[in-house]
Amino acid sequence: MKPGRISPSTVARLPIYIKGLQVLARAGESPVSSERLAQVTGVGAPRIRRDLSYLGALGTPGVGYDVKELLGVISRCVGLSRSWPVALAGYGSLGAALTVYGGFADRNFQVAAVFDSDPRRIGLKVGDLEVLPPARLPAIIKEKEISIAIIASQADSAQYWADMLVKAGVTSLLNFAPVTLRVPRGVEVRSVDLTSEIQMLSFHETMKRTNGTSGSLHIGDGRHLSDSMGDK
Amino acid sequence: MKPGRISPSTVARLPIYIKGLQVLARAGESPVSSERLAQVTGVGAPRIRRDLSYLGALGTPGVGYDVKELLGVISRCVGLSRSWPVALAGYGSLGAALTVYGGFADRNFQVAAVFDSDPRRIGLKVGDLEVLPPARLPAIIKEKEISIAIIASQADSAQYWADMLVKAGVTSLLNFAPVTLRVPRGVEVRSVDLTSEIQMLSFHETMKRTNGTSGSLHIGDGRHLSDSMGDK
Repeated sequence: MKPGRISPSTVARLPIYIKGLQVLARAGESPVSSERLAQVTGVGAPRIRRDLSYLGALGTPGVGYDVKELLGVISRCVGLSRSWPVALAGYGSLGAALTVYGGFADRNFQVAAVFDSDPRRIGLKVGDLEVLPPARLPAIIKEKEISIAIIASQADSAQYWADMLVKAGVTSLLNFAPVTLRVPRGVEVRSVDLTSEIQMLSFHETMKRTNGTSGSLHIGDGRHLSDSMGDK
Repeated sequence: MKPGRISPSTVARLPIYIKGLQVLARAGESPVSSERLAQVTGVGAPRIRRDLSYLGALGTPGVGYDVKELLGVISRCVGLSRSWPVALAGYGSLGAALTVYGGFADRNFQVAAVFDSDPRRIGLKVGDLEVLPPARLPAIIKEKEISIAIIASQADSAQYWADMLVKAGVTSLLNFAPVTLRVPRGVEVRSVDLTSEIQMLSFHETMKRTNGTSGSLHIGDGRHLSDSMGDK
């Protein structure tokens, strides 16, 4: 296995495979064929076989893949077999929600530090943590060996947080602020723009009312993730 | 203007244009050339000109586009010139956060009804609203003329909520549950999978530590949205 050679399009599908395999594991189905995995994930079977072979998971010919084993291989590859301390910048309504959002902790992402520049928020208790001012950020990031951070600030302070986090050693950012962050090479940014997503829906509704049809907007569920880096 | 003929790839870029134009409007820049818009949005100038011409916004040759006028055209197109009542299914930590998240209300999306099936949550006050049981859903959706809903439930109840919402008349869903929803044709689903997003980052970190490089994962900021339905 040479993880450095896994293409971005394969990487983008790994979470989809994890989800599908978890469904199969809960249902007690194992082993499974690539065709069965295709049914569960919506990804084509040949592509699945190719992706998994990159990870060194070849399955047993005529039998298929052992579900738990495959989950283990992909999870290790995605880094889910260890726990990741995560910093959160911006403790507004969204930031506060993310600190208690179960979906991160379930996958071994623990919010280990919370920062905000608003004096009214600094000092607030967040579970065992406390909202800290920006001045504390560099030392805390180093002390807790944090490499992943979530930016949940307002748009106009997102770049400020990104600069400070990157300078402190963070190399992966999950950005909820509706701005494009400028980061040095080697820093990975994933953006989630909730406002844009809901705007797409209002567009769909507007088109439908204008035309009496749903227009040309058939983007489908989650496909923008898996198709965006298609290697076809 | 024939909105029905706007391609999904153009639609996907409209929120990006809105964001860029808002930045220019705040800076007092107007009129602007497509080249200037390209700098601000990261979309190529020829593509911008083509996209905007589909909306009937041609600009003035040699002068450019009036920023406020263009914002108005795109906003009307995306349905932002009116207010949208939105239903929320699932009042857990994420659902609760979304009811107070400013980013939706700023763009005229108002949470107008909140549903949960957990007796401990039913009856909770949410601003002027109250968490309602599923039995109340069909009547409320019709009464409030809700066509857009947010599903913030656990994975195993997301399809239940989707079925009920669609049956009640909802035609646009923003799904935060990590499952692929099955919906009839004409219903639009946008998915936001926060867990997958953060998993991508842990993969980046794992690769970096394995290889001493950031591997092949240079997906960039927000590009998965604009590139995902590229019409090149």
